[in-house]
Amino acid sequence: MAVNSEREILDRVRGSMRGKGTGLALGIGDDCAIYRPRPGEELLFTTDLLIEDVHFRRATHSARDIGYKALARGLSDLAAMGASPRFCLFSLAVPAWADARFVGGVYRGLLDLSESTGCPLAGGDLARAEALTCDVVACGSAPRGKSLRRSGAKPGDSIWVSGRLGGSALGLATNRGRARRRHLHPEPRLALGQFLRNKATAAMDLSDGLSLDLARLCLESNVAAQIEAPPLYAGATLAQGLHGGEDYELLFTAPPSCRIPALHEGLELTRIGNVVAGRAGEVYLSGKRLDAAGYDHFKRHEQS
Amino acid sequence: MAVNSEREILDRVRGSMRGKGTGLALGIGDDCAIYRPRPGEELLFTTDLLIEDVHFRRATHSARDIGYKALARGLSDLAAMGASPRFCLFSLAVPAWADARFVGGVYRGLLDLSESTGCPLAGGDLARAEALTCDVVACGSAPRGKSLRRSGAKPGDSIWVSGRLGGSALGLATNRGRARRRHLHPEPRLALGQFLRNKATAAMDLSDGLSLDLARLCLESNVAAQIEAPPLYAGATLAQGLHGGEDYELLFTAPPSCRIPALHEGLELTRIGNVVAGRAGEVYLSGKRLDAAGYDHFKRHEQS
Repeated sequence: MAVNSEREILDRVRGSMRGKGTGLALGIGDDCAIYRPRPGEELLFTTDLLIEDVHFRRATHSARDIGYKALARGLSDLAAMGASPRFCLFSLAVPAWADARFVGGVYRGLLDLSESTGCPLAGGDLARAEALTCDVVACGSAPRGKSLRRSGAKPGDSIWVSGRLGGSALGLATNRGRARRRHLHPEPRLALGQFLRNKATAAMDLSDGLSLDLARLCLESNVAAQIEAPPLYAGATLAQGLHGGEDYELLFTAPPSCRIPALHEGLELTRIGNVVAGRAGEVYLSGKRLDAAGYDHFKRHEQS
Repeated sequence: MAVNSEREILDRVRGSMRGKGTGLALGIGDDCAIYRPRPGEELLFTTDLLIEDVHFRRATHSARDIGYKALARGLSDLAAMGASPRFCLFSLAVPAWADARFVGGVYRGLLDLSESTGCPLAGGDLARAEALTCDVVACGSAPRGKSLRRSGAKPGDSIWVSGRLGGSALGLATNRGRARRRHLHPEPRLALGQFLRNKATAAMDLSDGLSLDLARLCLESNVAAQIEAPPLYAGATLAQGLHGGEDYELLFTAPPSCRIPALHEGLELTRIGNVVAGRAGEVYLSGKRLDAAGYDHFKRHEQS
């Protein structure tokens, strides 16, 4: 079966829009999607590109893995700010090698996650391109003024991470076992993000590695950080735990007086250090300056 | 000057976010942008890809043209539904040939239009890719229940278009004169869209050519259409006026009793025909069946 018209593909996903109770008044099929906000909510928006040979390779990612990860990245950004998912938009550029079965698989991967997290697909765009390119916009909601930001960390706050780090980097390196699944199917920490709304002073998700992401959080908050080694994923090296990207765990800060449990809905939470006054963005590991060696698209490419 | 980090580019555009009175509580620099809806508004979302050698060629489009058009397409979708722009998100994937000057030009083209239309840049994503790829999300607002849709046309309604058609196709073919500018800098019909809110029964923008777009509107409204030749851009052929894409004029329907002026803020409005009962999606030009020959990404590529 050939991919023979936009309409055919759009018709397939059109049914996915669940209108009742989601606030979506109009989904796929018109020039725009329509969302009707509820009283007292603020809306959060994030957009993430996922591009063949930049963010994933066809050799390791199935069509479903690609669709899943495209949305998972956006949902993780919502989780980082304590938002509940509301809807998503999905733009897809399809190369000639991708047949309708493959394209359908990408949509299925996205729709599986969209349905399990209550984040209906409200619209998107579809085009041809040389490389498979996805861009997902995720919209979430939080009570007005309650979203978590990167900029609220204060000297004296404790620094926390969820889960164990380095699993995705390990999975990328070995391409097998549970770590491989960790790399392909990261779980957006939505429940934790919402739990932290009235607790954390700052939060973000770990997409580019702890060393770089913690430096970013500190820069936005105009503080420095002192940490010890984070909890490592079974088999991961310290370098993978410090610098490996795509764990999509949450990094957050909270006053020492705030009671953070060791487990939240089965997910470990570990205190790894303290926010300190100092040069904005500097991170110290066991007292020594830690360079930000996480993933930066432009730096990486300039260096390689 | 090399493109040496995401931060450098993000810092440049960070200042563009105008917070006051826009509803944007947080722009570029965190995991998500935050928008605080006003009472009684519904929000409209559209996302549009703009890809090198698919939607534009470097030989004809400058960096600024690319940024301008990426946003203009989204704003035109908002205009089509009668929305006022609220904010936009911009994802950009940059190939190795594009230096910081070029990337800066793309942002400048987008920001010029963003500022002139009151649609601040609230966030986005930036990555490397083989082909220059833009994805713009435009968010607009309308009073609740007042957005224009494709689906409301009724038999007996008049069919109208704004402006003169075929100018963009002419400019693409000749690459000179005013038509070239028409192709490169289409003007989203935002004021007209808002004017039509309480008048039109259905509306959409002409992005893929009148023949295809009118068929789509009729399909959504479950009606057919009888039209005469539309007003043509000076020098454009009838085929360019009927099938040429990217005019970004508005196509709308209104009851015959509704007074539509011949000019709205200097823009011509022309009645081109009538909505009729019939097989959904069929369009007749001067009594003969008109095939939809406008631009469909997948059909075009399958055929060529």
